[in-house]
Amino acid sequence: MSKQRILTGITTTGTPHLGNYVGAIRPAIEASHNSENDSFLFLADYHALIKCQEPKLVHQSTKEVAATWLALGLDTDNTVFYRQSDIREIPELTWLLSCVCGKGLMNRAHAYKGAVDANVANDEDPDKAITMGLFSYPVLMAADIVMFGANKVPVGKDQIQHVEMARDMAQRFNHIYASKKQPILTLPEYVVDDNVAVLQGLDGRKMSKSYGNTIPLFLTEKQLQKHINKIQTNLLEPGEAKDPDTSTVFQIWQAFANEAQTAEMRQAFADGIGWGDAKKRLFALINEEIGEARERYNELLKQPEEIEAELQKGAEKARKYSQTMMEKVRQSVGIYGLK
Amino acid sequence: MSKQRILTGITTTGTPHLGNYVGAIRPAIEASHNSENDSFLFLADYHALIKCQEPKLVHQSTKEVAATWLALGLDTDNTVFYRQSDIREIPELTWLLSCVCGKGLMNRAHAYKGAVDANVANDEDPDKAITMGLFSYPVLMAADIVMFGANKVPVGKDQIQHVEMARDMAQRFNHIYASKKQPILTLPEYVVDDNVAVLQGLDGRKMSKSYGNTIPLFLTEKQLQKHINKIQTNLLEPGEAKDPDTSTVFQIWQAFANEAQTAEMRQAFADGIGWGDAKKRLFALINEEIGEARERYNELLKQPEEIEAELQKGAEKARKYSQTMMEKVRQSVGIYGLK
Repeated sequence: MSKQRILTGITTTGTPHLGNYVGAIRPAIEASHNSENDSFLFLADYHALIKCQEPKLVHQSTKEVAATWLALGLDTDNTVFYRQSDIREIPELTWLLSCVCGKGLMNRAHAYKGAVDANVANDEDPDKAITMGLFSYPVLMAADIVMFGANKVPVGKDQIQHVEMARDMAQRFNHIYASKKQPILTLPEYVVDDNVAVLQGLDGRKMSKSYGNTIPLFLTEKQLQKHINKIQTNLLEPGEAKDPDTSTVFQIWQAFANEAQTAEMRQAFADGIGWGDAKKRLFALINEEIGEARERYNELLKQPEEIEAELQKGAEKARKYSQTMMEKVRQSVGIYGLK
Repeated sequence: MSKQRILTGITTTGTPHLGNYVGAIRPAIEASHNSENDSFLFLADYHALIKCQEPKLVHQSTKEVAATWLALGLDTDNTVFYRQSDIREIPELTWLLSCVCGKGLMNRAHAYKGAVDANVANDEDPDKAITMGLFSYPVLMAADIVMFGANKVPVGKDQIQHVEMARDMAQRFNHIYASKKQPILTLPEYVVDDNVAVLQGLDGRKMSKSYGNTIPLFLTEKQLQKHINKIQTNLLEPGEAKDPDTSTVFQIWQAFANEAQTAEMRQAFADGIGWGDAKKRLFALINEEIGEARERYNELLKQPEEIEAELQKGAEKARKYSQTMMEKVRQSVGIYGLK
């Protein structure tokens, strides 16, 4: 059986936080070192334009997100790591897929329907402030996926629909343009990892930008300690036994600790460790894991040409696939040189 | 005042007929020899994919349409003549415009609304069989236009809306991304020529593919005479005076005749020329005008690499503009290399 190709898009809006790190970035970086994986990982900056119309922010965010992944040790020899907008074939494939994608499919997309519902609830025109970018981005996403013949697309539950839509479009395209024996586009499958580590935020809810309860990943040491100090705790005094299993401090500790360290902290809770003390130790643990990466991150931000070189290396690798695929797809729809 | 740039798209579905020739092709080819014009003329094959999912037909049609224009003497030194799909920047700009184009605008597009009305009239789902290609092609059209900074877009009345939409998108893009003093995209204007020569078809209605009443442009002489013989006439016999102003034969004659020839035929009608005779003379007149071009056309079809070379020449010229424009547009939205 041939290797399964795994493709993952990274949004380039917002600053990565500890929740992103534990849930997505750290496992993906670990996976990038596994030579049995055939992974494509890209910065989705064409998608960013849907949400963000501030050019400096779009640019800065791409830089920061790329620097984050590189600083944390992404293996870019073993993974194709590229910026979506460097692959000019992607919007072209998007157009070709548009021509086989029913509009009805897009009408049913969750993000679009959510926006319509919100408008209707406010007595507004259903399509108010909805751009064609927002409406049609599942087609762009399908192009992202099928361009590289991805078999597996790891997603959160809210993204399952997009992979299914990509599958629909690929199927439709093959039905129209390919022979049954030799499909042109690979049908992707979604993969939902039910064991994704979910980190709690400052207020005990899931750490998420939309709750405003995050701890950004690469704060200065001082800021990191400050943020950790803001984690909500109960009023138990030092010396009083504490329940680790209802404590956000302990929940985050676990995400960074090895088994021995976890057992140790559990004991410390039973022994009545003070919150201030526990938070100092949590800071030290996290800082130990990400301290070096933070330094590399700050250095990278000062040397953006190094980040760019990595992205160009990835783009070159990605284009080998995308150019081949695009020629095949163009040929199949009837677009090719006269001879 | 700087030269006005004029941009025209040519659909690549269907075989050109005498109506196309008289109404659109002949005047455009004459204009192509005027060195005061700055004209861009393209084969809209990305658009063809919306209507035609038969690859051979898409390809063949591009070839035939390109050969037609070249055979008729299009001045490709003085006009940028290119195939849309050779300009890979166009679908990319389409995506960027999608992100500033309200979905509401597309909801109001005539072609889309027409398709919805037809579905509703048939008690079908309003979006039945409507693809995202059909729904969003005004965005592609806007990219076609603003990519080259076109000032004027000559269109039929049914296409005015598309140019207005392109103008809307360009305006919106400038509003978000450009300073007031230095707009990035040129706002296009539509030009409707009310004097477009409309040719009558075999049945006396406007010559149109949808009426099935056309005379294809490059028939063999025999076929051309056969088609002309099918033009509907009344039952007046040779020797009986005929009214030129209600005759399709005379209407087509006028489109190919000079003043003297027109006067001459008017007299012949008064003198009771027989229909068969009139049709023979019509054949001779048309054949004189297009006979040489027909030969070149047939030769070109046998030498597709010559057509391709012309298209590549045009693509190279077009890409000088599109690449510069695209870099400017990418920069303005925040997509550019890290440095």
